[in-house]
Amino acid sequence: MRSAAYTGNGTIEILESEAAPPPEGHVQVRVAFVGLCGTDLHIVHGAMDARVTTPLVFGHEMSGTVENVGEGVDGWAVGDHVTVMPLAWDGTCPACLAGHHHICQNLDFIGIDSPGALQTLWNVPARTLVALPAGLALDVAALVEPTAVAVHDVRRGEVAPGDRVVVLGGGPIGVLIATVARHAGAAVAIVEPDPHRRAQIEQLGHVAIDPASIDQAAWVAEWTDGAGADVVFEVSGAAAAVAVATGLAKVRGTIVVVAIHGVPREVDLKQVFWRELRLLGARVYQRTDFETASSLLADGVVPTELLVSKVVPLTGVRAAFDDLEKGLAMKILVDVAAQEVAR
Amino acid sequence: MRSAAYTGNGTIEILESEAAPPPEGHVQVRVAFVGLCGTDLHIVHGAMDARVTTPLVFGHEMSGTVENVGEGVDGWAVGDHVTVMPLAWDGTCPACLAGHHHICQNLDFIGIDSPGALQTLWNVPARTLVALPAGLALDVAALVEPTAVAVHDVRRGEVAPGDRVVVLGGGPIGVLIATVARHAGAAVAIVEPDPHRRAQIEQLGHVAIDPASIDQAAWVAEWTDGAGADVVFEVSGAAAAVAVATGLAKVRGTIVVVAIHGVPREVDLKQVFWRELRLLGARVYQRTDFETASSLLADGVVPTELLVSKVVPLTGVRAAFDDLEKGLAMKILVDVAAQEVAR
Repeated sequence: MRSAAYTGNGTIEILESEAAPPPEGHVQVRVAFVGLCGTDLHIVHGAMDARVTTPLVFGHEMSGTVENVGEGVDGWAVGDHVTVMPLAWDGTCPACLAGHHHICQNLDFIGIDSPGALQTLWNVPARTLVALPAGLALDVAALVEPTAVAVHDVRRGEVAPGDRVVVLGGGPIGVLIATVARHAGAAVAIVEPDPHRRAQIEQLGHVAIDPASIDQAAWVAEWTDGAGADVVFEVSGAAAAVAVATGLAKVRGTIVVVAIHGVPREVDLKQVFWRELRLLGARVYQRTDFETASSLLADGVVPTELLVSKVVPLTGVRAAFDDLEKGLAMKILVDVAAQEVAR
Repeated sequence: MRSAAYTGNGTIEILESEAAPPPEGHVQVRVAFVGLCGTDLHIVHGAMDARVTTPLVFGHEMSGTVENVGEGVDGWAVGDHVTVMPLAWDGTCPACLAGHHHICQNLDFIGIDSPGALQTLWNVPARTLVALPAGLALDVAALVEPTAVAVHDVRRGEVAPGDRVVVLGGGPIGVLIATVARHAGAAVAIVEPDPHRRAQIEQLGHVAIDPASIDQAAWVAEWTDGAGADVVFEVSGAAAAVAVATGLAKVRGTIVVVAIHGVPREVDLKQVFWRELRLLGARVYQRTDFETASSLLADGVVPTELLVSKVVPLTGVRAAFDDLEKGLAMKILVDVAAQEVAR
């Protein structure tokens, strides 16, 4: 079988190996499609070298079919269409004991801290499998993981029908959050500096705001009859977005911190105090988010045509990252099976 | 009657005037005691000159007795012991319509935005009055307002029995938060750089931590068996406290922003994301907080002897601020009635 691995120094190599049978409690999945995401880009850039062990087979947004069921595993059969929730928790840390397994203090994020999905045959713990609904195509199903991120974020922000929601950052996760929030009954405005992305966002029926030409606080105040936004999602990772976020939310409004900010950011804590704001961190997802995400994709709620810019074979991963970096694509899928056929 | 007023340029003047009868819907209160607080100090320093209109009779922590009841007021009788919740809301802004009157978008904070308690006879809207429990001495009752701040903060932080709570800053509000949190069943550690205050905090039975000599994150990790604090209160207003706060809270823990930070502060948003933290602003109080605070004081829960360093007459206000500024006192009360007798 083949895999794509980060081998350090910004290098991706295609490796050949023998497929191992699934260990006890594991299932072997024949990987169909893998989505490439910003975290993968960070890994390949070397930004996560202190965390990852090379060679690292990365990739954590995927779909596939059950190929082989290991000992001690019930409930799965060969041929089942599945995705993987790529989290392994220890079950014993204080966070797990409090029920927050998804953000276990010693979380193993599969595809970062242990081998990921960019391989033909992938052995995963059975408890990570999530069944796909009938009728959900495998290419679309590779979007379950990023959609689950958005479902988790919107759930964490407690978006309610009639809410006015602002999303800071119109990349794939920002667009997915907007999609899920609108499905929950909210009206959504997305702040996005890139004009190409703004055009796409408007095609989806959301309001797209150019932060370079529009006073965001004044715009939101008018949009909300002076109240401010019910929920603001910070998805951009930019200092400028953090600086404005506290001025967009209503009294007792919520700001959900979705992006990873590598350095401390200046936050207007006086506004947090003054308006009794609520800032919530939102990270990864829980099983319920995966199940909701699968349903939303199966029901055609998610604009997958817009999100998926391109499908490439395993050997196209390097070039795909170049496209992502240049902003030439929203989301690129890797057709892992196609690569097997092509070699 | 007499009043103490801020007249600009760091000046406090004692003014003489005729007492006006209470307008319709108002009650005239004979003021007994007024507590001086950090906000008053800011006013007198000129830090709030852009907000206040001079001469400003300030003061908003008080106790007194009903002297005269205006037309259209029911439920109050001459001689009733009262305190005042010094908030006037418009009832029509989006925050009020959503039920958050206490942080009305056009809130009039009585004693800052309109005349306050440092006057012999004070006319206040009847709806601001809060009845004092029988047996609560009027000097102690001047602490209802700051205690209500602490009650509101602890309620906002949802402190629960068994919680481990860290309070950053051991001034009067920090000590009151610690008191209320312990009464709610929590164990409390207070971080406070001043050794004199730390000694007082230890006398109250809380843990006092010197941030200059103790690694706060390591200490809290050990104190909580590796979990982190359930709730952290940021009461210091210091950049350094904000910088450590996110490293003290447990996964899904809460940080309550109580202090007023005049400038944006660097916040470790990656920790907010990583541990799905919750930052909550907490400002002023609601009527229920005043009622709870009155009960706590009547029940002897609050260490008033420690908190009240001194009682001065109206003419002693200027010197009292000097003491507060030099850290020579926790809380100073003004005995407004005594001043009337003395003149």
